[in-house]
Amino acid sequence: MPNIPPSTPAGGDGAPAVYDETYRLAAEMTRPLPGSSRVYVTGSRPDLRVPMRKVEQAATAASFGAETNPPLYLYDTSGPYTDPAIEVDVREGIARIREAWIEERGDTERLSGPTSAYGQARLHDPETAHLRFRQPPPPRRAQPGRRVTQMHYARRGEITPEMEFVAIRENQRLELLRETEAGRRLLRQHPGQAFGAAIPEVITPEFVRDEVARGRAIIPCNINHPELEPMIIGRNFLVKINANMGNSAVSSSIAEEVEKLVWAIRWGADTIMDLSTGKHIHETREWILRNSPVPVGTVPIYQALEKVGGKPEELTWELFRDTLIEQAEQGVDYVTIHAGVLLRYIPLTANRVTGIVSRGGSIMAKWCLAHHQENFLYTHWDELCEICAAYDVAFSIGDGLRPGSLADANDEAQFAELKTQGELTRRAWAFDVQVMNEGPGHVPMHLIKENMDKQLAWCDEAPFYTLGPLTTDIAPGYDHITSAIGAAMIGWFGTAMLCYVTPKEHLGLPNKHDVREGVIAYKIAAHAADLAKGHPGAQVRDNALSKARFEFRWRDQFTLGLDPERAEAYHDETLPAEGAKVAHFCSMCGPKFCSMKITQDVREYAREHGLDTTEALSTGLQEKAEEFRAGGGELYRKA
Amino acid sequence: MPNIPPSTPAGGDGAPAVYDETYRLAAEMTRPLPGSSRVYVTGSRPDLRVPMRKVEQAATAASFGAETNPPLYLYDTSGPYTDPAIEVDVREGIARIREAWIEERGDTERLSGPTSAYGQARLHDPETAHLRFRQPPPPRRAQPGRRVTQMHYARRGEITPEMEFVAIRENQRLELLRETEAGRRLLRQHPGQAFGAAIPEVITPEFVRDEVARGRAIIPCNINHPELEPMIIGRNFLVKINANMGNSAVSSSIAEEVEKLVWAIRWGADTIMDLSTGKHIHETREWILRNSPVPVGTVPIYQALEKVGGKPEELTWELFRDTLIEQAEQGVDYVTIHAGVLLRYIPLTANRVTGIVSRGGSIMAKWCLAHHQENFLYTHWDELCEICAAYDVAFSIGDGLRPGSLADANDEAQFAELKTQGELTRRAWAFDVQVMNEGPGHVPMHLIKENMDKQLAWCDEAPFYTLGPLTTDIAPGYDHITSAIGAAMIGWFGTAMLCYVTPKEHLGLPNKHDVREGVIAYKIAAHAADLAKGHPGAQVRDNALSKARFEFRWRDQFTLGLDPERAEAYHDETLPAEGAKVAHFCSMCGPKFCSMKITQDVREYAREHGLDTTEALSTGLQEKAEEFRAGGGELYRKA
Repeated sequence: MPNIPPSTPAGGDGAPAVYDETYRLAAEMTRPLPGSSRVYVTGSRPDLRVPMRKVEQAATAASFGAETNPPLYLYDTSGPYTDPAIEVDVREGIARIREAWIEERGDTERLSGPTSAYGQARLHDPETAHLRFRQPPPPRRAQPGRRVTQMHYARRGEITPEMEFVAIRENQRLELLRETEAGRRLLRQHPGQAFGAAIPEVITPEFVRDEVARGRAIIPCNINHPELEPMIIGRNFLVKINANMGNSAVSSSIAEEVEKLVWAIRWGADTIMDLSTGKHIHETREWILRNSPVPVGTVPIYQALEKVGGKPEELTWELFRDTLIEQAEQGVDYVTIHAGVLLRYIPLTANRVTGIVSRGGSIMAKWCLAHHQENFLYTHWDELCEICAAYDVAFSIGDGLRPGSLADANDEAQFAELKTQGELTRRAWAFDVQVMNEGPGHVPMHLIKENMDKQLAWCDEAPFYTLGPLTTDIAPGYDHITSAIGAAMIGWFGTAMLCYVTPKEHLGLPNKHDVREGVIAYKIAAHAADLAKGHPGAQVRDNALSKARFEFRWRDQFTLGLDPERAEAYHDETLPAEGAKVAHFCSMCGPKFCSMKITQDVREYAREHGLDTTEALSTGLQEKAEEFRAGGGELYRKA
Repeated sequence: MPNIPPSTPAGGDGAPAVYDETYRLAAEMTRPLPGSSRVYVTGSRPDLRVPMRKVEQAATAASFGAETNPPLYLYDTSGPYTDPAIEVDVREGIARIREAWIEERGDTERLSGPTSAYGQARLHDPETAHLRFRQPPPPRRAQPGRRVTQMHYARRGEITPEMEFVAIRENQRLELLRETEAGRRLLRQHPGQAFGAAIPEVITPEFVRDEVARGRAIIPCNINHPELEPMIIGRNFLVKINANMGNSAVSSSIAEEVEKLVWAIRWGADTIMDLSTGKHIHETREWILRNSPVPVGTVPIYQALEKVGGKPEELTWELFRDTLIEQAEQGVDYVTIHAGVLLRYIPLTANRVTGIVSRGGSIMAKWCLAHHQENFLYTHWDELCEICAAYDVAFSIGDGLRPGSLADANDEAQFAELKTQGELTRRAWAFDVQVMNEGPGHVPMHLIKENMDKQLAWCDEAPFYTLGPLTTDIAPGYDHITSAIGAAMIGWFGTAMLCYVTPKEHLGLPNKHDVREGVIAYKIAAHAADLAKGHPGAQVRDNALSKARFEFRWRDQFTLGLDPERAEAYHDETLPAEGAKVAHFCSMCGPKFCSMKITQDVREYAREHGLDTTEALSTGLQEKAEEFRAGGGELYRKA
């Protein structure tokens, strides 16, 4: 595929189309990861095809026991982009795989066009014509009086194709490993410490349905986002991660944002949030949604604020309502709503070191003070629920008063809002609307668990979705690390989704490099959490990679890693020769001096001499030791 | 300073001198960090000058309350290199600041030259003349029958200059902050959860002495390393980090290693370990020691193995003994000794996924099996203690059977060795030798605490020194992050020093970039641990940085961070103009849309209207809200 950059960034007056006719996504964003191929696992109907990344492993060399190593099927968030059989044209958008499922339910209607005033105006605005996605599909909405949320179906006892899809996806074909001795060895793992999470050995569609009905998990999937490959967020499933993107008044273009999406899901982002605050929010979002196989979240108040020239006090309920409908009809899967920032909580932040750091929280705080009225998002909550129930938009109830520094962690303001998040959660559930709760922020390690415990208790086990938390404030430029520490811990304690932080946090907007760093740091945190919880099969990939490492299967070590390309590049810096990738040593110690190699000798020796118990060793060994030395003391057999 | 690269890497036949006459360290390694100046705090004698990095802060702008912000005095590991008043010539080595202290104690004797056979041979070897440090000082040794360890002095009740030095150093001049209101605000922090650590508000020399006497802390400071700026390792002190370096048969030169040292301590490494396994180990170490203001650790078995051509079975006690003396007389401050790898534990590793991954552990295992004899390091432990007591070399008792994969974590082999580490600790203490214990490795989060708990119990609270642990195996290329998570947690639980892991772990030898990444990741982990333990004053820097962030003091936000240069560079990527560094907004949201700015409005508003309680807000506010809107709704005053 030719590597042609996007024509011209959008945003300037008279800018050309976002993508011109010659545009192709760069090969680095679409080529399959090394050693990997795309496979699909078909469910109960032929159009239910769950994508996975199959990683083949080389056989173990004779010197290490000569055995076949089974392929792994890894959870794959990258959508059609890494499937060589599919050539994505971002101007057309990706395949609408859920279209038939939604249609078949017969509970929605096709609208002739957007029903939001803004959506209508924007559709016909000649000024933005050059930026518009070519064929925005007419939106769909619940028929009057119907609710079309996954929670609604789940509570009625229906297993939707979406539920079956996520069940297959979560299992990662572990059943194949159970069939062979080599596979069963890979499945061995430490019992976890799950803090009340209860993850079954096999995730069934019925279990998914049950968790969604209970509100303990959500499947964010707007009926207007049929391109979506369903995924689930809940503490009895794999921990997920979100990658934020979005332009601002200062920087970034539409084409860049679409490419950040493709890039983020390549490395493993389970959802993305479009946090654009600059120009052309509406158009940017359309491009992202039509090309996104993962759920897209937004913070609608950002766009609402743009519409009133950046003056929070001029926001109105009517404007916000129109904005939410606009976004729901484009296909946004979940929305952050800062409805828990109540008027009476605002003064609780006055003595903080860093006050209110959530943008949404500070906007609503300013509105509340300016009007001396209760937060309109809170007072209109039931209407918000009705809108979301008509499109299956999930709530991500914002934490507008989250701490922006360690000093402010776990304070009265933060926990007051969390209690209100719980109230809002229950009210949304009454409308069958799916809900998760957002959490902090900046929290020292020893105060992290309190956040999780209170959220579980006060919000009735709705999924928790946290930003980090950052465990120290002193490392600008490295906050993907300060926060991966907190994220891993809170994920272990029960957080269902972790919002990534990039190295640019507090300093600037992330570029592609930063997105990759942030996503990988958070894949690490999420996986470390799955391991500590004892998620069934969590350790398979660790076991396979460690076995490959021990057996000097270098290529398998790369391909089983979270970032095969970087692992190989780092290896090649020291030992670039192709031969070194099959070498039975590595660059750290050189050929003569290798602990793995020496251990193999020990193992061989122990095996040959039946030395697997302390007793065996303590008798008659002097003689055998002498044989060993006489034989050259070198039992390691060349492959 | 001119930025001239080192002349030619050493190691080849006929290579020129390591550093030629025109050599200067590159400016990027020696220029003071932005906004920082070097200061010295003088103790009870004029030659006891404790270096610190003073960071001045700008005053708070009028719009944020117009106040002076006190300077912070940060712990500084960078030695003379960042002092503009000192021009270091690496060919001469750095100042020998402890020389007089050691001399005055009158318990040592100057030798005419090395007493080790190898040290003598190497001193006169014409083949390596071009690689030799110009003036290797004649070594010093305890007078016959004397012990010259800090533990010995501490147990006798003596407070040495070294103890006073570390007491001043640990306090970071917090007493100055206690004098002012602004300073006291910075000192506010969350009570920690210390798991039995007991850190006093003020570290006194007497407290240091007591901890060293008790074996709960060590001050690694060989009498032959007078260049050292003393530091302490113990769980009632700041958590420390170590950076590994060293060449191998495959890569790296002497000059590179010295530069990695200077680079590592610039970013905050508290000790370094020279793990060279290639050519010229002896010469490399001499250069490092003569230029190192931080303790230098080694693993003597690596060099011993080189001396027998890489064949473990040819190792002998006599050879090892000579190697230890060689290194002790050069000035090595602590040595890793794998004396806990007992013959009967070796078969316990046979069924592991990754066997024995410690190089030292595998060497000794192979020796034990080849000879069917008990580990000679174990059987000669008392003699090792006698040698170390004569130079004040501290033991870092190795964990040769540490797990190399999650699968092998916390297994029988690992814990069997840990118990033996405890036995060896007590035996070393009988000789007044300072001891720490090395720990794992690869451990999932929920099994980390067990490692710490057992170490404290079985090793009588000797300082624990762990590598990571890595909390997952699946991220080659990012193991500084997988391990920073585990390091932060185990540091919180009580580990005294964290051995860094770089992004190259498992893949290759770290270059300068990797060293910086590894050191900063570990400074984060160590500091996160100090915060969670509630180390007095730990939160000062976080509070100061967060306050600066909130008040848009961009430069202070950079300079208070762990890597001011990167923070500024990242900021400049989005907003390069100099004016943006005094802007009251940032690049993420742009000028109009800033949560910090809006929060300031809220705070101003609350303050002006006396709204610091919920009660105040709930009465008579409608009127005030109207005033606010009438007044333009914009209370934020331009600076």
